[in-house]
Amino acid sequence: MNVIDIILDKRYGRELNDEQIAFFVKGVTDGSIPDYQASALLMAIVLNGMNEREMTTLTLEMARSGEQNDLSFVGDITVDKHSTGGVGDKITPLVMPLCSSFGVKIVKLTGRGLGFTGGTVDKFSSIEGFDINVPQDRFGELVRSVGVVISGQTPDLAPADKILYALRDVTGTVDSIPLIASSIMSKKLAGGADAIVLDVTCGSGAYMNNVDRARDLAKAMIRIGNLAGRRTVAVITDMDQPLGRCCGNIMEMEEVWDTLSGKGEEDVVDIATVIASKMIMLADKQGQLSSDELIEELRARLNDGRARDEFVKLIRSQGGEFIDGVPVYRDRPNKIFEVRSKRDGYVRSIRTDEIGYSSVMLGAGRLKKDDEIDYGAGIKFIKKRGDQVSYGDVLCELYVGKDSVITPDSNALKEIADKVFKAYNIMPGAPEKRRSVIDVLEQQ
Amino acid sequence: MNVIDIILDKRYGRELNDEQIAFFVKGVTDGSIPDYQASALLMAIVLNGMNEREMTTLTLEMARSGEQNDLSFVGDITVDKHSTGGVGDKITPLVMPLCSSFGVKIVKLTGRGLGFTGGTVDKFSSIEGFDINVPQDRFGELVRSVGVVISGQTPDLAPADKILYALRDVTGTVDSIPLIASSIMSKKLAGGADAIVLDVTCGSGAYMNNVDRARDLAKAMIRIGNLAGRRTVAVITDMDQPLGRCCGNIMEMEEVWDTLSGKGEEDVVDIATVIASKMIMLADKQGQLSSDELIEELRARLNDGRARDEFVKLIRSQGGEFIDGVPVYRDRPNKIFEVRSKRDGYVRSIRTDEIGYSSVMLGAGRLKKDDEIDYGAGIKFIKKRGDQVSYGDVLCELYVGKDSVITPDSNALKEIADKVFKAYNIMPGAPEKRRSVIDVLEQQ
Repeated sequence: MNVIDIILDKRYGRELNDEQIAFFVKGVTDGSIPDYQASALLMAIVLNGMNEREMTTLTLEMARSGEQNDLSFVGDITVDKHSTGGVGDKITPLVMPLCSSFGVKIVKLTGRGLGFTGGTVDKFSSIEGFDINVPQDRFGELVRSVGVVISGQTPDLAPADKILYALRDVTGTVDSIPLIASSIMSKKLAGGADAIVLDVTCGSGAYMNNVDRARDLAKAMIRIGNLAGRRTVAVITDMDQPLGRCCGNIMEMEEVWDTLSGKGEEDVVDIATVIASKMIMLADKQGQLSSDELIEELRARLNDGRARDEFVKLIRSQGGEFIDGVPVYRDRPNKIFEVRSKRDGYVRSIRTDEIGYSSVMLGAGRLKKDDEIDYGAGIKFIKKRGDQVSYGDVLCELYVGKDSVITPDSNALKEIADKVFKAYNIMPGAPEKRRSVIDVLEQQ
Repeated sequence: MNVIDIILDKRYGRELNDEQIAFFVKGVTDGSIPDYQASALLMAIVLNGMNEREMTTLTLEMARSGEQNDLSFVGDITVDKHSTGGVGDKITPLVMPLCSSFGVKIVKLTGRGLGFTGGTVDKFSSIEGFDINVPQDRFGELVRSVGVVISGQTPDLAPADKILYALRDVTGTVDSIPLIASSIMSKKLAGGADAIVLDVTCGSGAYMNNVDRARDLAKAMIRIGNLAGRRTVAVITDMDQPLGRCCGNIMEMEEVWDTLSGKGEEDVVDIATVIASKMIMLADKQGQLSSDELIEELRARLNDGRARDEFVKLIRSQGGEFIDGVPVYRDRPNKIFEVRSKRDGYVRSIRTDEIGYSSVMLGAGRLKKDDEIDYGAGIKFIKKRGDQVSYGDVLCELYVGKDSVITPDSNALKEIADKVFKAYNIMPGAPEKRRSVIDVLEQQ
């Protein structure tokens, strides 16, 4: 078999057979197919597409390209959750305790943040003493005692995807439903969970910037999941503004705590309870509750402290420290600037990609994988979609940690503030209200 | 400027501006754009196309990427001729004397053969003593004394094209009108001639396997030529079978000699006289003759020895030897095998790519650039399109030089003979007759 013939087949719009896809993934993994041939095929896939069978084969082959997690030690249905990427996305730290309060077992393997979306590893790591690097041989013990475990010690899952993803990033081939769907699902399949809930974000900071495309991506991933024998549900969520009240590692964990104390923002509560409900139902732990009743029960558990108790148990089990029953953080966010409106109107949307990059520039994230994180850095959104603003009103506040190199009169800060202001889309007239959960897609 | 944005623009079907194309060509030439990004953009160009302006800019930038020939020393209109590739193509050695007999000045820079189409350098080099490596500082003297000069000492013309061509070859992006047109025309523009006649071959051994595509390619090249200020004419010629009576270096030069002695095959005479007529007219040397009269005159000069006299002058001027007025060759083709028909019918076509590769396997060409050539190797076509054949008839004869490693009972020879037989498409019923010159396209 010859990779040039595979490229030519896809170039001329022909369907690739299983052997061709397997040959390609193997060649990418072992380096026998050079990156210039891989990128040519990726572009041909982007422009000529892939059908369901091709996507599923690509996903399965990438999932098989490295280690595959075995979660059978859990002895119960395991559920995983994945977001296609958002800013201010603190849904994972919320759904873990919500699910464990229903007895759902979760082994959450997660990565550090890179680029403009924060990483769950970094969020949990912002709690003093919290050990995110739980070795695999302790998973069993923690799942039995706590029900859930979160670890950044991920084995080498889907190395073919890592290689292709890095290549897509620099060859203009990121935005492609077959490639996004197979990339995400390959890691999920290799991750070993029996069932998967996908949070498909939709808006300026997401892969998909309109609902139809988000729905197409969700459908593709559900079909791949089903063909691969994993029950898969997708929730389409709004990402036309950052999620919740703030972004930044400590600030988001504080917001998680507030949400678990009955003081959550409605968008965060909406998405967290819907996603948790789907995870609980896939694990078959909902008891006699209907879907709507389950969501009501989850909201109740956010308000009455039951979910917070589960969260405390999770954090303590991995070494996280508390003082007076409240988590202790590695740093303290200090307000360094207020971004004010230069016009009158209503906030129509907030470009989350621009906000994400601004947050990275403040120190909250990484552009390169060895960059240091400022846990205290972040942005607090005072005005969000639908809010009326007048000239001079504070739109949001910028925060940095105690050792930040960004000073109140630095040019860097001015640049960030300018970028953040431009991310706000302020127009005359109040925009229509809309829910954060746009759609839920089950079996396709 | 960022190459990823350029890739994305073409990926989304947008027109690239001049600065983007210049940035790309410069980056490819100096190595700052890695091949995986170049190949992604090439595939996007293949699938989303380029308009005339983009093609012309790409061509001009590639032409400017290295040295550019200055032919102003000729002091007259210079004309170049280019074939998009054929098997048995001995048109260049014929049009040079035909043109010089009308006073047209030609500086022909040409390359060695690689792959299945033979190289003009190799054909001329098969004459004993002939020096193909004429240095540039002798061009003026030879043009003044003989009118024409042919040299394989080509400067580094269009290095960007060399890099992109090598990449296209291994990434399934060869067959693309904008890329083929800009590749060919970049070398022609850098070559410095004022006017260009393109022989666009069409058939199984050519870039373009149907007449409509060949016509589209021809039109694209003519438009590029015109936009770049060079008068350009294209002749679409048939390549559904090898041209003339044989392929192979010495065998083709012998056929050239016979053609110049009034014993040419009609397909060769047709194409050579039409192309020469266009070159003469672009150089404005036709005098009072109409286009048809000019072709008649050229046919007359093939029959009455005037073109042959010019050929002798050309060969002698570069050291080629004659005995008794006939060229002396470096070797002698020896018949080693007769390929016979295994069925009855009519020859409908002969796959020139298969014939070309068979000829290379016999030793007549190179697969790698340092391969040695067997000047005596070649194939003589006894049956061609339209000929009736019966079981056992000789279709063609295989030849090798005196030092060939291919012996009459070698497996290599059996394999070649089998390949050659399969190249013959023999069907019941006589095919329609057709002319070798399919179309002539002038100003677009």
